[in-house]
Amino acid sequence: MNYQAILEEIHEEVLDLLPCGTVATYIPQLATVSPQKFGMAVQTVGGEIFHVGHALEPFSIQSISKVYTLTLGFTFEGEKLWTRVGVEPSGSTFNSLVQLEYEHGIPRNPFINAGALVISDILLSHLKNPQSSFLEYVRQRANTVSIQDDPQVARSERQAGFRNAAMANFLKSFSNLSNEVEEVLAFYCFHCSLSMSCVDLAKGFLFLANKGLCPWTNQQILTPSQTKRVNALMLTCGTYDAAGDFAFNVGLPGKSGVGGGIVAVIPNRLTVAVWSPGLNDKGNSFAGQYALELFTTKTGVSIF
Amino acid sequence: MNYQAILEEIHEEVLDLLPCGTVATYIPQLATVSPQKFGMAVQTVGGEIFHVGHALEPFSIQSISKVYTLTLGFTFEGEKLWTRVGVEPSGSTFNSLVQLEYEHGIPRNPFINAGALVISDILLSHLKNPQSSFLEYVRQRANTVSIQDDPQVARSERQAGFRNAAMANFLKSFSNLSNEVEEVLAFYCFHCSLSMSCVDLAKGFLFLANKGLCPWTNQQILTPSQTKRVNALMLTCGTYDAAGDFAFNVGLPGKSGVGGGIVAVIPNRLTVAVWSPGLNDKGNSFAGQYALELFTTKTGVSIF
Amino acid sequence: MNYQAILEEIHEEVLDLLPCGTVATYIPQLATVSPQKFGMAVQTVGGEIFHVGHALEPFSIQSISKVYTLTLGFTFEGEKLWTRVGVEPSGSTFNSLVQLEYEHGIPRNPFINAGALVISDILLSHLKNPQSSFLEYVRQRANTVSIQDDPQVARSERQAGFRNAAMANFLKSFSNLSNEVEEVLAFYCFHCSLSMSCVDLAKGFLFLANKGLCPWTNQQILTPSQTKRVNALMLTCGTYDAAGDFAFNVGLPGKSGVGGGIVAVIPNRLTVAVWSPGLNDKGNSFAGQYALELFTTKTGVSIF
Amino acid sequence: MNYQAILEEIHEEVLDLLPCGTVATYIPQLATVSPQKFGMAVQTVGGEIFHVGHALEPFSIQSISKVYTLTLGFTFEGEKLWTRVGVEPSGSTFNSLVQLEYEHGIPRNPFINAGALVISDILLSHLKNPQSSFLEYVRQRANTVSIQDDPQVARSERQAGFRNAAMANFLKSFSNLSNEVEEVLAFYCFHCSLSMSCVDLAKGFLFLANKGLCPWTNQQILTPSQTKRVNALMLTCGTYDAAGDFAFNVGLPGKSGVGGGIVAVIPNRLTVAVWSPGLNDKGNSFAGQYALELFTTKTGVSIF
Repeated sequence: MNYQAILEEIHEEVLDLLPCGTVATYIPQLATVSPQKFGMAVQTVGGEIFHVGHALEPFSIQSISKVYTLTLGFTFEGEKLWTRVGVEPSGSTFNSLVQLEYEHGIPRNPFINAGALVISDILLSHLKNPQSSFLEYVRQRANTVSIQDDPQVARSERQAGFRNAAMANFLKSFSNLSNEVEEVLAFYCFHCSLSMSCVDLAKGFLFLANKGLCPWTNQQILTPSQTKRVNALMLTCGTYDAAGDFAFNVGLPGKSGVGGGIVAVIPNRLTVAVWSPGLNDKGNSFAGQYALELFTTKTGVSIF
Repeated sequence: MNYQAILEEIHEEVLDLLPCGTVATYIPQLATVSPQKFGMAVQTVGGEIFHVGHALEPFSIQSISKVYTLTLGFTFEGEKLWTRVGVEPSGSTFNSLVQLEYEHGIPRNPFINAGALVISDILLSHLKNPQSSFLEYVRQRANTVSIQDDPQVARSERQAGFRNAAMANFLKSFSNLSNEVEEVLAFYCFHCSLSMSCVDLAKGFLFLANKGLCPWTNQQILTPSQTKRVNALMLTCGTYDAAGDFAFNVGLPGKSGVGGGIVAVIPNRLTVAVWSPGLNDKGNSFAGQYALELFTTKTGVSIF
Repeated sequence: MNYQAILEEIHEEVLDLLPCGTVATYIPQLATVSPQKFGMAVQTVGGEIFHVGHALEPFSIQSISKVYTLTLGFTFEGEKLWTRVGVEPSGSTFNSLVQLEYEHGIPRNPFINAGALVISDILLSHLKNPQSSFLEYVRQRANTVSIQDDPQVARSERQAGFRNAAMANFLKSFSNLSNEVEEVLAFYCFHCSLSMSCVDLAKGFLFLANKGLCPWTNQQILTPSQTKRVNALMLTCGTYDAAGDFAFNVGLPGKSGVGGGIVAVIPNRLTVAVWSPGLNDKGNSFAGQYALELFTTKTGVSIF
Repeated sequence: MNYQAILEEIHEEVLDLLPCGTVATYIPQLATVSPQKFGMAVQTVGGEIFHVGHALEPFSIQSISKVYTLTLGFTFEGEKLWTRVGVEPSGSTFNSLVQLEYEHGIPRNPFINAGALVISDILLSHLKNPQSSFLEYVRQRANTVSIQDDPQVARSERQAGFRNAAMANFLKSFSNLSNEVEEVLAFYCFHCSLSMSCVDLAKGFLFLANKGLCPWTNQQILTPSQTKRVNALMLTCGTYDAAGDFAFNVGLPGKSGVGGGIVAVIPNRLTVAVWSPGLNDKGNSFAGQYALELFTTKTGVSIF
């Protein structure tokens, strides 16, 4: 399929939408990004890559990093992981403490903030040098050494992140964190602060479209069965409390971040990454989600 | 693929599990069904059908009927439908009034009881003879005239259904029912009381695996795009508050009922229906869900 | 103390406030009452009565009737009553289904709608002719045979009361109603439809200021200990989710109704009843609550 | 009245109940207190004092300190205080984050932990040397210089208090804390760590029974109107989510702490303090609450 032509069509069609979203402002580094940015990249399992717009420009991946922490934590813990975090959609806002209280400290899934904090805690328990090891893991997945964290973003996030601090303390009160609250928060802010481009993301998640095999290192990152499960989780829980809407309109497993990035997987075929900083009222990239809708419409690819 | 051999293998493997579930007892007619019943049927888009066990024996489809009310309501209302019911997973028990209160009478999705009541109300507003027209619609989808409702089941359901009556009154208090509460409840109990066999169900939902085209009547029931959306909804919301678990473990769009039936769709390939009356603690067929897990493992088919 | 002079001062001071509240409109009979109405009456345990304004004009007592149903139910059931209804403030809106769900069908207290429905159910189980017996009970408390129910109000309430119907069905689903849902709703709407004047109310609740002894019939309606408890309940739960505010600002046990009436008790001294149809945003009479604040300030009486 | 004889009777009657409660164990210092301790003291506005048992032995007052932080904060802020904290009973467990989320960071009342954290924040903003000034304030109220904080208790509380830390961060995320989270938590743990005896408490809260006038320093701590309001708050919110039960059974404004202390006020007459470390399932002293019930029964004093 002529993905390049399709990406170019999409690019043109979304330009008018870029001002519709609202750039996240809760930390200064996100607020300064131009809402006019738009990039999109497709990486096929056959090895082809296509991209348009600002697809080579790194941006803050934020919650997209939670897919990597999950896959790494899943490798470490196997099925045991699910005793500390669930696999159900949250059905409410992404940082709700309410559900956590009613469900006694077991977060609904690994993609809501509470769940990601638990996964961060698990990685801290397994990694001697958590930050450098995690960064290396991400670089290998994307086959590029240039991926960096942004200490300023991490610091701002930590300083502004009273809700996350509330959540981490709350999890600790339920004994669902083994490490110190401060360490967990610091590592969480670290992995959210990674900067990657659309091309990095499309390459970096190809293993999820490839039955768990990372083509760049030829490593089996997850078993095929584990890979299906991670994809299923992205579909049901990957876009905060808009997961139903995303499945309904886009129809692909995907994960979004407040930096405006979304990555989606078409199993056995390709990954597609998109970036546009303006967010819709659910915290997902406004133009990005629409671009993915156009992509499934124009290509006819869908899992449904 | 030799689906017959696979179904027979599965049949053998699940026999030991049949006593593990708990048969629904809230209405007498469900309580009397033997927990030893097990049937399974596969219908391919190519026109082949395979089945094992009690796959020809009709049972109470209960909530599976909500897929038909949705598809018919979607046909009548188009996108307007989504102003009265959402597309998000509920994240809590299937008959919760809590969420309905916080969300001002707009049910989370068409498959939780509140949402299905709203859809029932919509059908009542469109159909002159709601019961006979709906029954005819279902018979045409499954290409069989023998499908019947069970007035005794409907009556018992209505008498025992104080929670549904609570919900219907609550929806009415939010002005999200146009017809009389009693009429809506009666029609809801009617459509839940339909009896179908696994073979009926596999045939009857083939249009959802076939881009919306019903092969038996050659009618386009839904557009391809609408069909994808209904499938997406079944994946994210089709199995009550275990939708995440079902997606995680089975990985297919599916809809379950407390009668012990589950129907699942593999787009562009086949439908598979299973029946075993013993339920797990989430209200889905215990052996039935496991049989579907085995089916995806043995065939390697999955959407992820 | 010169209560007459105080009532007249208050009357003058609140006249400007009468337009501030909002008259309840959910049933037509309430909506037609003039917001300019204001009456107030004081009945002392010594036998004196004082009143100003429209204190002799009957109005719909609505939820104030729940004090009578409680005292009658308490007489019938004694301490056993508290197995079916609690004694805690609700902390949320007066007709919330949420709390009822989390607390498995045991309403927080007898004054929220759910609790009053349970009490209605109890009375139905004890009284052969519930409506006439209850009416007789109220007339005797107030020493007047002219008190009437308003069938039109009751009927409107029943027709508009989908939330109450939801609640009653919900209670029934938790097996906390013994009688038919429809009967319970009908009796509930009946007792809410009683019309009484401020003078009727001040006289009719004097037994609560008089250690349980009804001075007009010389009957011990409640024991002194039961009387203290009912007063305590009125203080903590008598004014919907504004009970804290009412205790904070008025400082008296009291019970309000959406008809704009409030009755308050100063144990061992007097009762005071006030009526003004405009409600504040918590559903209590706007000018009425303020008049009671003035009354405690001017008289210096308070329980605190 | 012969209060001494009454206290002695009560002492005898509660001895058998002392083993019924459960001593708080979440911090080591509370866990080591003997459940056999029982003390009770009455201080009249006329200047008499009576006591029995271990009424002179200091114990950890814990949440009772929140009455002092409230009265001091009320003095500083006046009615402005109520923009940052409410006056309604919570209707749910004393450290619930749920309500805080639904109510956008405004705690229900100053006695639940969240509310007390806000009050702590207010004191920090007003006091140059918060700890010593607060300690001095308490000593003056009780007319004794021997009252001390317990740094070990404060430290343990801070270390174990992940839920309070969650709450403080959550409040900060709603901008309802001006000072640093850590400072607020430290001051909160400080004031909860004060040790006082029953006699200290009975003397120390006499100003609340005395229209706001502290008899020992002859200072008007609160206006009579403010005093009534604080008493009203203690009645509706002073004993966590058992305030209704406490009002129903004891019928006095009171404040409890997990150290097993309860102080109650009979306006214009006396204060009564009781201590017994075993707690009931609501976190209030088991024998202590019962002793207060006996006290109101035997003396016949009550506000209702």
